[in-house]
Amino acid sequence: MLNVVIIGASGYAGAELALLVHKHPELNLKGLYVSAGSQDANKPFSALHPQCLGLVDLPVKPLDDAGMQEAKTGTDLICLATAHEVSMNLAPQFLTAGIPVFDLSGAFRVQQDGFYDKYYGFTHDQPEWLSKAVYGLAEWNAEQIKQTDLVAVAGCYPTASLLALKPLMAAGLIKADTTPIINAVSGVSGAGRKAAIGTSFCEVSLNPYGVFNHRHQPEISYHLGGKVVFQPHLGNFVRGILATIYVQLADGVTEEQVNAAYQQAYSNSPIVRLSKQWPSIRGVAGTPFCDLHWQMQDGLLIVGSAIDNLLKGASSQALQCINLRFGFEPTLGLM
Amino acid sequence: MLNVVIIGASGYAGAELALLVHKHPELNLKGLYVSAGSQDANKPFSALHPQCLGLVDLPVKPLDDAGMQEAKTGTDLICLATAHEVSMNLAPQFLTAGIPVFDLSGAFRVQQDGFYDKYYGFTHDQPEWLSKAVYGLAEWNAEQIKQTDLVAVAGCYPTASLLALKPLMAAGLIKADTTPIINAVSGVSGAGRKAAIGTSFCEVSLNPYGVFNHRHQPEISYHLGGKVVFQPHLGNFVRGILATIYVQLADGVTEEQVNAAYQQAYSNSPIVRLSKQWPSIRGVAGTPFCDLHWQMQDGLLIVGSAIDNLLKGASSQALQCINLRFGFEPTLGLM
Amino acid sequence: MLNVVIIGASGYAGAELALLVHKHPELNLKGLYVSAGSQDANKPFSALHPQCLGLVDLPVKPLDDAGMQEAKTGTDLICLATAHEVSMNLAPQFLTAGIPVFDLSGAFRVQQDGFYDKYYGFTHDQPEWLSKAVYGLAEWNAEQIKQTDLVAVAGCYPTASLLALKPLMAAGLIKADTTPIINAVSGVSGAGRKAAIGTSFCEVSLNPYGVFNHRHQPEISYHLGGKVVFQPHLGNFVRGILATIYVQLADGVTEEQVNAAYQQAYSNSPIVRLSKQWPSIRGVAGTPFCDLHWQMQDGLLIVGSAIDNLLKGASSQALQCINLRFGFEPTLGLM
Amino acid sequence: MLNVVIIGASGYAGAELALLVHKHPELNLKGLYVSAGSQDANKPFSALHPQCLGLVDLPVKPLDDAGMQEAKTGTDLICLATAHEVSMNLAPQFLTAGIPVFDLSGAFRVQQDGFYDKYYGFTHDQPEWLSKAVYGLAEWNAEQIKQTDLVAVAGCYPTASLLALKPLMAAGLIKADTTPIINAVSGVSGAGRKAAIGTSFCEVSLNPYGVFNHRHQPEISYHLGGKVVFQPHLGNFVRGILATIYVQLADGVTEEQVNAAYQQAYSNSPIVRLSKQWPSIRGVAGTPFCDLHWQMQDGLLIVGSAIDNLLKGASSQALQCINLRFGFEPTLGLM
Repeated sequence: MLNVVIIGASGYAGAELALLVHKHPELNLKGLYVSAGSQDANKPFSALHPQCLGLVDLPVKPLDDAGMQEAKTGTDLICLATAHEVSMNLAPQFLTAGIPVFDLSGAFRVQQDGFYDKYYGFTHDQPEWLSKAVYGLAEWNAEQIKQTDLVAVAGCYPTASLLALKPLMAAGLIKADTTPIINAVSGVSGAGRKAAIGTSFCEVSLNPYGVFNHRHQPEISYHLGGKVVFQPHLGNFVRGILATIYVQLADGVTEEQVNAAYQQAYSNSPIVRLSKQWPSIRGVAGTPFCDLHWQMQDGLLIVGSAIDNLLKGASSQALQCINLRFGFEPTLGLM
Repeated sequence: MLNVVIIGASGYAGAELALLVHKHPELNLKGLYVSAGSQDANKPFSALHPQCLGLVDLPVKPLDDAGMQEAKTGTDLICLATAHEVSMNLAPQFLTAGIPVFDLSGAFRVQQDGFYDKYYGFTHDQPEWLSKAVYGLAEWNAEQIKQTDLVAVAGCYPTASLLALKPLMAAGLIKADTTPIINAVSGVSGAGRKAAIGTSFCEVSLNPYGVFNHRHQPEISYHLGGKVVFQPHLGNFVRGILATIYVQLADGVTEEQVNAAYQQAYSNSPIVRLSKQWPSIRGVAGTPFCDLHWQMQDGLLIVGSAIDNLLKGASSQALQCINLRFGFEPTLGLM
Repeated sequence: MLNVVIIGASGYAGAELALLVHKHPELNLKGLYVSAGSQDANKPFSALHPQCLGLVDLPVKPLDDAGMQEAKTGTDLICLATAHEVSMNLAPQFLTAGIPVFDLSGAFRVQQDGFYDKYYGFTHDQPEWLSKAVYGLAEWNAEQIKQTDLVAVAGCYPTASLLALKPLMAAGLIKADTTPIINAVSGVSGAGRKAAIGTSFCEVSLNPYGVFNHRHQPEISYHLGGKVVFQPHLGNFVRGILATIYVQLADGVTEEQVNAAYQQAYSNSPIVRLSKQWPSIRGVAGTPFCDLHWQMQDGLLIVGSAIDNLLKGASSQALQCINLRFGFEPTLGLM
Repeated sequence: MLNVVIIGASGYAGAELALLVHKHPELNLKGLYVSAGSQDANKPFSALHPQCLGLVDLPVKPLDDAGMQEAKTGTDLICLATAHEVSMNLAPQFLTAGIPVFDLSGAFRVQQDGFYDKYYGFTHDQPEWLSKAVYGLAEWNAEQIKQTDLVAVAGCYPTASLLALKPLMAAGLIKADTTPIINAVSGVSGAGRKAAIGTSFCEVSLNPYGVFNHRHQPEISYHLGGKVVFQPHLGNFVRGILATIYVQLADGVTEEQVNAAYQQAYSNSPIVRLSKQWPSIRGVAGTPFCDLHWQMQDGLLIVGSAIDNLLKGASSQALQCINLRFGFEPTLGLM
């Protein structure tokens, strides 16, 4: 049994991760923490996440000096479900203590000059760790994940997008000089657990946001190795992402080639389901899966990709990475 | 045409009221204001309420000294959709200037010693105006509303509850020494337009709150003239209230007597619909109506009462009161 | 006052239309009908649409021989909110009796050989009337609507799509040999009022459907005069459509040109709101408006277009057409 | 490993049960069946329940003669998630073959003369088996469940109601000659998986139904051993039940007595959570728990009780009964 500490347990992804660790046969949930100043510190976990009562009854401790010391002691791995800058600062403190870190934030995902300044509004001051981080897209980077101590778990939109696009890119099926268009809709939990007028019950409906400037667009491009148009929307549901993706195929590409590309990529990956129906939020919410389906006509391929943003888009993907890193069965604790 | 000013236009009830005034053939919407310090001051109205674009395009002005002066000048009536204490302080300033006030807050609804200290957390410092205020339950207090300059528009839960219970009380059909039980569910807009974790999209589902201490319980009791048990719930919808009410009938009361009580109360009140089906949120949301239906067995009467909390529970009832006060047709601008 | 008959009043669009006619100062709602065999025949209207109780209390009559006779007598205009084939068969019966018809179905929208066989599954047997029909997209075909007796009110998705695309097409701003992509999400009421597992509460979430074969794709292309990719989705809300549209602009097109194109098209059309924010379902549901907003980068224009599918996508657009045809103010009864 | 067959796998409770059996370490899901004439026969399970793809990939077979033979062969226990009459007819066929039956329908729940005629509309023709059935309310009937071959798993509303009321009844805390009032709201999945206008997405909101005649009222009374008023409502959510229960306490009953009654009943029952907050649908949806919380004033006790209707109200309670009957840990496969 490995001892796991989760920092940032007050959020939705942190809560899901706590439940997953609780249920995992090889992991022991050792402690839950939030930032020292958080108003959620010292509350019972179930006061924040009532569904967890009786399952995860640990207190949510503040990550002050004593908390930090405690979090490092006897801990086999750390999960950070914290804000980007907080992760950037915390990760090295655990890494230098020899504790592997699985970071659910965006702090270590993109190794590109100026990226954090432009898209996150801060200068990355841990460039060495950034350069060592492995992007935690489990189905594509398994070998590197096995050998790293710092996994930057892939973002929610990027996971849905990249799982759909990378097989096509790998097989060379995307038409040169064309740009795939990703139209994605996320549930409200993607905005995190917080009081904000924009995510209040009465204000949410369905609308585009982040037009031409969402930070997940360069994350997708960077890990795809090619340009994309990415347009996110907020939808009126709690959890899930549906991406509808439009791809111009190279001349002469056949349906068989497309099918083969997806088969080759995922025939051994039970988490990615090549479904016979179009994906839906209902089909993936509460599950660790990514559902893919596609159809083509006149050289245009439309791909539907759906995930639960809190699971495959965050915590269950983190668990996949933990399984890989520590040599467990790839889907242990997930199915 | 009467000039109307709305203060507290940033909230949901204020927005509905602005639309109603805009559509009313005898009213002119002269100005919209919010408290001087509000972050919504100086925004276009439609930036807060996008559905109003092209209908109500007034700016939302701050109620600073200049705003106050402007709000009083050439104004025939004032609507306050402000916080309780704000209303308590503002109303007299307009009343002493001779401008009738229609207050949607709870500041002038209950003329009972200690009520505001106990249930609202402040001492009422306008006892004279409080004693002059008329409770704006349009179907029951029409004559007094016609003759007052200060209407305390009835609360949302009290409106749904009192419209169901007052006919029974008036006809003496409630069993002595029994207490009606009101189980009510409100949409989230009842909590107002604000950022709060409890009303964020991801947290709302269906749950009781305010057990044994909601301020609408004494408001209902006071205006009914009898004890009630009142248990509110928050539901996962934006607007509407459904109250399911359990009443022990006096011995021997017949169905005909119950029907007659409701007919007598509302046969000339088109806003209260004595429906042949059980009411639903769907049937009243977006309408000015209160839907009532009932059934009895073994001396127990169950009454269903549904309203739109923002309309009959706030703004359209305010408009009913305005119609009464200024001698317009009772439902002008509502049907 | 013109006498209006609505056939197909059991559906959601028919109900909205009945309310609009009821409120319109120059129209009198004379009768409501459904197909003779419908199980909704002879029910009170409010048994189907509880929100209408007290507003529209007409019975829903069966369109049998007597009903047909009655529907034709003393009627100034007919609205058909019926199934496509039903409309195809009914419209001529009223037209030959000299009664103008406003058809909300797809029966008379596209004058293209083989269209109905391919996309609607029946052969159009009224080719002459089809050739005379005017497409009821009010902002674009006002002059022809004024002079026709058969208006084929535009479809819901086509309305949202065409209002966004036609200004660009008219101004020649779309890059040659590129195809705009329309990613659209509709509320469930778009599927009509019926019992079906696919639209049951427990099954609806968010998913693509009709991939490469939705009948609104050719309707859009035909009335735009250019190819489009159109991908509809079912969303978990009752009413509204949001279309997010991706357009490659011709080389050198500036933001000013795009803005000018929209201004020129809609500066005198209050129903189309050129908003400063991105449209949302919340902003248009329950309103007759189409909200448009756009942004461009590197030659790609993204346009958001939102309507209420039952209003601007059906009944309020029908009313716009009625206003035009009978010489009323263009937005009479709508604002 | 015990071989489990589920009949009625096309419904929502059947699907949840299939997932639970799939995850249970001591159970093997051997087969899934539906009635021979069902349109869902021969479909892949995930075509009906997309979330199950990759987890439960069995075909859904018709229960024709061959299916019946197959279902009996090598099967250790049968779960019936079928319609009431179907269960009544099927259960004896498996019981006489020596196979224990866990029936999720209402067919064997109430052993009272005339009950089925009055409330289910059919005459029970298996009175002997009915008399042998044990009511599957796991926390209260564990000893009998261990020794029976026919478990009538408790209904959804009765589970939420009885878990709240039985401790009070057992401790003699309910005032004589008073009747507890149960105001309950259920998610739409309680109506089953079917096409019906009443459960279509556009029609569902929140409304009372089954006033004074719901079949769960006598089921609750029978197993409580006392009268109740039970008023169900349909709510606009997929899964979950919230019951708000009003109980007149016997004179002099103290809060300590009430607390003690609940502690005594459930201190060893981890599935019933005595929460410190009021229960919510959000806190129990997707979990096997029943959440209870209460407060009293002036002799009135208000109890909130929430469950997931498909889990504790159906399939996870069935699994609790299976665990009890076959000697597994009481919560094996549930936590």
